[in-house]
Amino acid sequence: MRDLTVDQLDDMAVGAAVLGTGGGGDPYVGKLMARSAMTGRPPVKLVSFDELDDDDLIVPTAMMGAPTVMVEKVPSGEEIIQAFQALEAYLGRKITATMSIEAGGVNSMVPITVAARLGIPLVDGDTMGRAFPELQMVTPTLWGITSTPMAMADDKGNSAILNTITNRWAETFARDVAVNMGAAAYIAIYAMTGKQLKEAAIPGTMSLIGEIGKVLREAREQHVDPISAVTGITKGYPIWTGKVGDIDRRTVGGFARGTAKIDGTGEFAGRTLEVDFQNEFLIARAGDDVLATTPDLITMLDAETGEPITTEHLRYGFRVVVIGIPSDIRWRSEAGLQLVGPSYFGYDVPFTPIEERFG
Amino acid sequence: MRDLTVDQLDDMAVGAAVLGTGGGGDPYVGKLMARSAMTGRPPVKLVSFDELDDDDLIVPTAMMGAPTVMVEKVPSGEEIIQAFQALEAYLGRKITATMSIEAGGVNSMVPITVAARLGIPLVDGDTMGRAFPELQMVTPTLWGITSTPMAMADDKGNSAILNTITNRWAETFARDVAVNMGAAAYIAIYAMTGKQLKEAAIPGTMSLIGEIGKVLREAREQHVDPISAVTGITKGYPIWTGKVGDIDRRTVGGFARGTAKIDGTGEFAGRTLEVDFQNEFLIARAGDDVLATTPDLITMLDAETGEPITTEHLRYGFRVVVIGIPSDIRWRSEAGLQLVGPSYFGYDVPFTPIEERFG
Repeated sequence: MRDLTVDQLDDMAVGAAVLGTGGGGDPYVGKLMARSAMTGRPPVKLVSFDELDDDDLIVPTAMMGAPTVMVEKVPSGEEIIQAFQALEAYLGRKITATMSIEAGGVNSMVPITVAARLGIPLVDGDTMGRAFPELQMVTPTLWGITSTPMAMADDKGNSAILNTITNRWAETFARDVAVNMGAAAYIAIYAMTGKQLKEAAIPGTMSLIGEIGKVLREAREQHVDPISAVTGITKGYPIWTGKVGDIDRRTVGGFARGTAKIDGTGEFAGRTLEVDFQNEFLIARAGDDVLATTPDLITMLDAETGEPITTEHLRYGFRVVVIGIPSDIRWRSEAGLQLVGPSYFGYDVPFTPIEERFG
Repeated sequence: MRDLTVDQLDDMAVGAAVLGTGGGGDPYVGKLMARSAMTGRPPVKLVSFDELDDDDLIVPTAMMGAPTVMVEKVPSGEEIIQAFQALEAYLGRKITATMSIEAGGVNSMVPITVAARLGIPLVDGDTMGRAFPELQMVTPTLWGITSTPMAMADDKGNSAILNTITNRWAETFARDVAVNMGAAAYIAIYAMTGKQLKEAAIPGTMSLIGEIGKVLREAREQHVDPISAVTGITKGYPIWTGKVGDIDRRTVGGFARGTAKIDGTGEFAGRTLEVDFQNEFLIARAGDDVLATTPDLITMLDAETGEPITTEHLRYGFRVVVIGIPSDIRWRSEAGLQLVGPSYFGYDVPFTPIEERFG
């Protein structure tokens, strides 16, 4: 167990946005929200998996919706407490701790606000090892853990408890509820025991995002290459360098969907990389060449500062380096690829690990 | 208190469809469902308002969705029990009785199935005195009674509990959940005490629908005019006679919407009546003449048999008599007209009581 304090938030938010692969929300918004919740309260206790009892009850918390909307609607922090407590009341049992559902600028920070406000521990882990657009896309799904009963709340005071027969159905119902909640809802989901969590969740994510942010900051301070700092700690590969050209971006069915075109520079001059996204980047292609696909992480970094750029902040003319990062091993199983591989998103290409392409 | 038995269902389903004003579901489907639930079980106890204690807890039950879909999806009867018991568990309190939310071919029958299966009383009343398309359109809304917490369930095993800040928000959320539930969901809603019910609900509806069905049947048996029998007992007026022409019908946003054109015959020859509907008939117009509007009831009867015809069964060439029936007095207040009057549905016409037009 260690203390998580306000001064660690900057690094963590940046690191989370690296693993957020273009989605997961704006780290600036996430940081503001967490800072506000932590100020004037005791430090949040960050606990590792082996510090949990098998019969502890852990409930991850998150914001659900198009990240483009999250930028415009800075949450007060009350909404997620409402969802969390609605689920606790429904379960009729005290929840021991909360956790992040995904690494992302906002969703790594939401559970920090819950832990700070309620004085409960935050588990050092998550359920994706990155960000993904849909609720069922978590490693607990691969272990048969159910997303429901889940609670949802909005900023107006509406809330819902869903019970669904599959995690995919939970996504379907919750997405439309979230759209009606103003395209951004607060959720408490995937209630699991300590025993289940140790099997099915991904350990160390909160520590990792802090480390990524730290090495990136130190590289800048020491005037060394920030891109190498990020690929070093994430075991990633630079796959493209270029300038942002056209961006096709629309909010459809509660998701931010689109394609970003990156006109190559340097060794990539004369070619264009197309990166499709559904909240998160899904596939990077240059003409007929597939450079990287989900579940591996595709992230865009500012070529100069190494700062991760989310899809809603991509602008024409930005100079970026696109990096590919190996996904957690759990996603590379057959069941994992069925859940989050390229074919799920409609791409008829096999998954090839990024390290086989660039290693 | 009196016993409600299987042999009364035929009359009740027909009478309910008269008050269903084209919506409320197919009385044949409703009857089958209720008959199946009642067979082999003790009679359902029908209780009047004055037999309820002030602190009894009454929860109306219903099917929600486009009636066009209800025709294709005959419910098993288990779904509504799931919704009812989910709400009972959520409230943490035994529910005394159930009731109809609206008079309609299906929704007058759904609470009978609940009462029969669970052995609880059925309250002789409803919350509309007719059928309306949206959840907030009930007299309890006028008395400040909240629709939520409400429970929803589908035939696959998915369920939800909603808590919303207004009854209009409940409609918005529940409608999309219902669409995801296959366009037809089963709901337990408007939990209220006996005291609230006596103030805010409409008494005697189950008895009335039985009476309407009975006089219609007897008129046919005695070869007297069935239309006069219906208008007699409902205090209604024949407003048009004609032959069904074009029907524009589509399922939009979980509703059956459209317009039915009735080419006049007899004294109406040469003119066409246009009747718009959103599940239920909303307005009847012949050219610039408005003949009837919501909240008064507009119902189409088979010209020969007097049988009510729901919108999903309207076919080209049917010979019909359109009747207008005065709505419950509660709907004619300013608040009532705001909730269900013509302007809510986008018609810029004042409400004029049917008895002023034709009386």
